[in-house]
Amino acid sequence: MNGHNLSKRELPPTCVIGLGLIGGSIMRDLAAAGVDVYGYNHSRSGARAASREGFDVHDDLSSVLSRAASDNALIIVAVPMHAVEDVLDGIALYAPNCGVTDVVSVKKSVYDLIRERGMQLRYVGGHPMSGTEDSGWGASREGLFTRAAWAVTYDYAVECDNAGRRVPADWIELFADVCELARICGAEAVPVSVAAHDEAVARVSHLPHVLAEALAIVGDRGGTLAQSLAAGSFRGATRVAGTEPGLVRAMCETNADAVVKTIDEILVLLQDARDSLADPDRPSIEQLAGAGYRAATRMGARKGARAESVSPVKISSRPVMRIQLGAPGWVKALRQTESLGGRIDVF
Amino acid sequence: MNGHNLSKRELPPTCVIGLGLIGGSIMRDLAAAGVDVYGYNHSRSGARAASREGFDVHDDLSSVLSRAASDNALIIVAVPMHAVEDVLDGIALYAPNCGVTDVVSVKKSVYDLIRERGMQLRYVGGHPMSGTEDSGWGASREGLFTRAAWAVTYDYAVECDNAGRRVPADWIELFADVCELARICGAEAVPVSVAAHDEAVARVSHLPHVLAEALAIVGDRGGTLAQSLAAGSFRGATRVAGTEPGLVRAMCETNADAVVKTIDEILVLLQDARDSLADPDRPSIEQLAGAGYRAATRMGARKGARAESVSPVKISSRPVMRIQLGAPGWVKALRQTESLGGRIDVF
Repeated sequence: MNGHNLSKRELPPTCVIGLGLIGGSIMRDLAAAGVDVYGYNHSRSGARAASREGFDVHDDLSSVLSRAASDNALIIVAVPMHAVEDVLDGIALYAPNCGVTDVVSVKKSVYDLIRERGMQLRYVGGHPMSGTEDSGWGASREGLFTRAAWAVTYDYAVECDNAGRRVPADWIELFADVCELARICGAEAVPVSVAAHDEAVARVSHLPHVLAEALAIVGDRGGTLAQSLAAGSFRGATRVAGTEPGLVRAMCETNADAVVKTIDEILVLLQDARDSLADPDRPSIEQLAGAGYRAATRMGARKGARAESVSPVKISSRPVMRIQLGAPGWVKALRQTESLGGRIDVF
Repeated sequence: MNGHNLSKRELPPTCVIGLGLIGGSIMRDLAAAGVDVYGYNHSRSGARAASREGFDVHDDLSSVLSRAASDNALIIVAVPMHAVEDVLDGIALYAPNCGVTDVVSVKKSVYDLIRERGMQLRYVGGHPMSGTEDSGWGASREGLFTRAAWAVTYDYAVECDNAGRRVPADWIELFADVCELARICGAEAVPVSVAAHDEAVARVSHLPHVLAEALAIVGDRGGTLAQSLAAGSFRGATRVAGTEPGLVRAMCETNADAVVKTIDEILVLLQDARDSLADPDRPSIEQLAGAGYRAATRMGARKGARAESVSPVKISSRPVMRIQLGAPGWVKALRQTESLGGRIDVF
């Protein structure tokens, strides 16, 4: 095998399990791109709403999974974390041959369930880094993932590599399919190990949610006067506090170790700033303000090219890595791409 | 005296000292409304840039203040906090008859300087609650304050009231002028005492800046992978970390007592959430997520009508209070308006 080329792939039929904000938006993007896509939704009202818009949606999980099995479909698990276990059991029963990916915002909890069932060979985890504070099919829309990162996990390839085994061709095909899924949705596939993913999203997604909740509480205690005076800095920092609490709990509680670590980090920063600002002779917040500004500047410079541009040609600032899947050293190349936050692009 | 009517006022000439983001934007709004406005800028390059755009701007403070004195102008102090003392000394020397307001983001530090100089009779503090992470004349623009709250302080009236004295007519005229200034700039005048202002903005403006700095640092520690995966929740929560550190220091260090208090509040919330999430048997963030969501919902409901609307007629959600300035009970009415975060509108 000389490696798999990601370009000019054609996705197999895709079966989306769970049509909320993320699953629904994926279904819309795939349908718009002409991919054969059908799905399942637990709530009948959601399924009916999607059907009325002309999507091929059903509310009987076993029959949808049986169809996926006969189609050799790619199954996209887009249910909340607490429902993943039942869906995987359904897949093991009705669609044991299908490749499986997911969009859950933590990856270790899902991978633990995958391992328990011995499904590593046909699983590649995913996490599109896009969303809004709304949820449900009604909030889904085409284009939600445009230019977003789409984390794609590759732990199984590392496990094979470490054991001196060749990565099976089926798994490589599945990995390529998930990258193509991201591309069709307008996103950029960023390869990342389960552990590195959960640590990174604790920093840049789960901790911001925790802070937004806490700030909303402190602001609200200021009563109607504080509400009246609140402007852009408060609105920007608390927007995601409007997220349904169950979703915030699911992401933080299933990634508790990493989130606790980031809360501990910010507690130290805030406690130091508080002590320095409480100095009665010379209240100072110089250290935090300086370090925060430098950090924001570094991250801003890195993200600059991803800002909205007047040019019709959008250029990503994520470095592109050309990886021949399955070729010698390719797993090492995935690790290098991960360390750079790079993307795997069509080539 | 039967009270002053705010409608159909005409502003006296206005003299803006300091033409950065806020002062420059005020000058643009006043000029667009046909008010006779001129100004001073410490930096010659800023003054020249404003002059080239046709504004009446000079770089000699004493001569500008002398002109204000002969015009009986309203002076708007729009310099950073550290420069306020020198400007007030200049006003005492060259324009001792003029009414003075300011736009500094803390009010006690300014009022202390006013008291030291015995200038309470001709001072009404102001703070337009709008801005961006950019600064300087180059960042100023017409319309920056549209629909923003513009805090207007009234401590001198309370002091008179408490002492059983009539509030002098000159001060009432000045208060009305500052409310009219806010109206011309498209903002809503919210009466607020110095202490209540500083406590409220610590919650909804200064604390968000502190959190943004700290979160930027924690995110940056995640390296390029975390940067690559960062999406809307991180961007929204760290936007103001791009503010020039000197401005963040000025607002927090001159309002240190109130900011320390809010940091202490959020430290307790975060420590509790951390401990509950670190429970090895049942990691939970239920309490914070629930309370944060309820707080965000309350504040959102209150702000709903201020969201962008497709209707050309903008309706403010801040309650309007009709106050006859100087009429019996009017200071008490200002206090009631403050407790509701209400606005004084033209009537």
